[in-house]
Amino acid sequence: MAHTYIEEISQYQGEEVTIKGWLYHKTEKGKLRFLMVRDGTGLVQAVVFQKNVKPEVFEAADRVTQESSLIIKGKVRADERAPGGYELDVSELTIFQLAENYPITPKEHGVAFLMDNRHLWLRSSRQTAILRVRSEIIHACRDFLAERRFTLVDTPIFTPAACEGTTTLFETQYFDQKAYLTQSGQLYSEATCMAFGKVYCFGPTFRAEKSKTRRHLMEFWMVEPEIAWAELDDVMALAEELVSYVVQRVLDRKKEELKRLERDTTLLEKIHPPFPRITYHEAFRILQEAGSETPIGSDFGGTDETVIAEKFDLPVMVHRYPVEVKAFYVQPDPQDLSLALCVDVLAPEGYGEIIGGSQRVHDYHLLLQRLESHHLPREAFEWYLDLRKYGTVPHSGFGMGIERVVAWICGLEHVRETIPFPRMLYRIYP
Amino acid sequence: MAHTYIEEISQYQGEEVTIKGWLYHKTEKGKLRFLMVRDGTGLVQAVVFQKNVKPEVFEAADRVTQESSLIIKGKVRADERAPGGYELDVSELTIFQLAENYPITPKEHGVAFLMDNRHLWLRSSRQTAILRVRSEIIHACRDFLAERRFTLVDTPIFTPAACEGTTTLFETQYFDQKAYLTQSGQLYSEATCMAFGKVYCFGPTFRAEKSKTRRHLMEFWMVEPEIAWAELDDVMALAEELVSYVVQRVLDRKKEELKRLERDTTLLEKIHPPFPRITYHEAFRILQEAGSETPIGSDFGGTDETVIAEKFDLPVMVHRYPVEVKAFYVQPDPQDLSLALCVDVLAPEGYGEIIGGSQRVHDYHLLLQRLESHHLPREAFEWYLDLRKYGTVPHSGFGMGIERVVAWICGLEHVRETIPFPRMLYRIYP
Repeated sequence: MAHTYIEEISQYQGEEVTIKGWLYHKTEKGKLRFLMVRDGTGLVQAVVFQKNVKPEVFEAADRVTQESSLIIKGKVRADERAPGGYELDVSELTIFQLAENYPITPKEHGVAFLMDNRHLWLRSSRQTAILRVRSEIIHACRDFLAERRFTLVDTPIFTPAACEGTTTLFETQYFDQKAYLTQSGQLYSEATCMAFGKVYCFGPTFRAEKSKTRRHLMEFWMVEPEIAWAELDDVMALAEELVSYVVQRVLDRKKEELKRLERDTTLLEKIHPPFPRITYHEAFRILQEAGSETPIGSDFGGTDETVIAEKFDLPVMVHRYPVEVKAFYVQPDPQDLSLALCVDVLAPEGYGEIIGGSQRVHDYHLLLQRLESHHLPREAFEWYLDLRKYGTVPHSGFGMGIERVVAWICGLEHVRETIPFPRMLYRIYP
Repeated sequence: MAHTYIEEISQYQGEEVTIKGWLYHKTEKGKLRFLMVRDGTGLVQAVVFQKNVKPEVFEAADRVTQESSLIIKGKVRADERAPGGYELDVSELTIFQLAENYPITPKEHGVAFLMDNRHLWLRSSRQTAILRVRSEIIHACRDFLAERRFTLVDTPIFTPAACEGTTTLFETQYFDQKAYLTQSGQLYSEATCMAFGKVYCFGPTFRAEKSKTRRHLMEFWMVEPEIAWAELDDVMALAEELVSYVVQRVLDRKKEELKRLERDTTLLEKIHPPFPRITYHEAFRILQEAGSETPIGSDFGGTDETVIAEKFDLPVMVHRYPVEVKAFYVQPDPQDLSLALCVDVLAPEGYGEIIGGSQRVHDYHLLLQRLESHHLPREAFEWYLDLRKYGTVPHSGFGMGIERVVAWICGLEHVRETIPFPRMLYRIYP
């Protein structure tokens, strides 16, 4: 491994370095071969000049194909015209393996074909840019919460019961019983926030929904903070801070990637608290003015969310939906018991809901009543009821879907490119 | 939420603060009530002196029970004798909810009972200490890898195929096909390291093994770095650095928790590179000398690992096992094709294998041969074979099991306390 990564070559101006990578593409001009080489940390142009190298090196440069693995020795030279500002004057070139007929060529390919070759498609500079942004977003979430002294408390994937009924759950045989794959760590985080004060979980979640939209995946990641003694306003403030922190951090640290994605960053630069806050009923009026036929009292669909969000430059926080459209655990508003103390954060530019949060029911009797009216089996929720029996406190939290945030920040049409190996209705391969 | 967390009260010496928490335990002496209050960030003694408070406050202090939720106002006073060095002179006390008959009392309880009440057991100071160490370990792993410019690339949970056969996999119906829950992200990370150079994945993994040992869980978390162009020695060096970094970081930042767990930290302070490296055959000789009946050429069991590890103060790296006992993807040693370029890192003090790693087969034809001899279906591995067709490179990686590292660093008998909600052979509740 005594080699130099491309991202570091600016430190070696005038020196000879060895890089190990793959051929991204190649052009030629007379006695020059220009090899664009990638190594996962960056791209650099390696220039092979026939006069300066042994015949076998020039022959290798001539012969090397897209995605062949290679080892190159050369001198680092600053060149303003070069992508990244540096070039390599090649002295040696070894092809480790010649790749024959690499399936993804510079020509256009259909999405199904690219997804069948996802393991290779990931090598393209657009896909690496997206996934580097994803990696930064995830780190930013964790740093944000760690700085605010939240404890990471992992919640289980195998669960005996479901948050919101079992129809959209994946089921597995767990020895002699049935288990379901989690849709959210929230219920467990409600337990752990009573032990740790401020907690979060961050893991994969699963939804067996037969939907084929550009916003849904069967397997997706969520970060879910939960805070004891916090009320709805507290988590709304936390949500706008988290979203702003994440956006600014990506702008700060992933400039190259956003440029590669041709993202209009002027829109992202505006993302700072406070975000606009509107009630469900105010949001409903926006829909009516826009001619929507969504009936009053019902939940908003994807199109509705886009119409509402288009009114704002910033993410908009829609709070206090009717109690009926929200889950059993949402606390009713003491000012108007028909309204839920909940919030959905809708991203700008039509990217839909990125955060859903609420204050949770903390009263034992109200929770019991809610379980009954939602036809949920009490036995499965005994432990959850216990939290209301032994030192219950007001508490609130939210979940932020990582893939939608990646789609928004990167400016992508579809969530399928926001995760390395997307799991969709008809796809679990590769 | 305009309240003070207990971990911050040293900043408010002489001032009046409001804390919100739960009663941990209570003692009394004449006209004094000593309430030990926890809020998830720490413990503080709140002193209620009958002469200084209204009768209803003293009455509340008298009445309050273990795990009742309460809000206390009081003046912060430095007191050397107090745990944490500060006490609260209480002026006001409100019981938010009186907890009746909290099931976990200071007396001894059996493990089954405590596990049935895991959602409450988590509130005990021993359990919070363990899980705070866990949280620190996970952050430390991520920081270590981020500092070394690894990209987090999440690998899928739903997989169409298995690393090592399907007998120990959990299966689920994925619409009209079967899917398995991942045992390791490695195969996918082999694809992503070709795109990003240095990657890691970090997620839950699943093993449907009917084993009831103190080292196994059905659901556990692994961090798995994978590096293109790296050979076995490179990942052995990385492994010892990672383990040492994690241990030193916990020693540095989780002193209180280790003290609470009565962990002998002198043993942990020694954990620095380099770790001893022995071959499988050297390890085998240790077993023979100790009178073990493990036949030559077979894999080591848990007891064997303990015998080997006991010879060393540091984690020991056992490398080059016989090819037959290792997975199909492990590269044979060019010096002796009967040996695998693999390493197991065994923790000291009998905590067993915490890391398993190897150099991976990078040759297409050898891999194909391996798939066949392991009776693995080629179709499921076509994408994996592609990695050897298009610019293959030597590459290596390892997986570190978080729960075993937590058990070792905390000095625990059993891994069941290392994760908030353990999934064991007969337990998926709560």
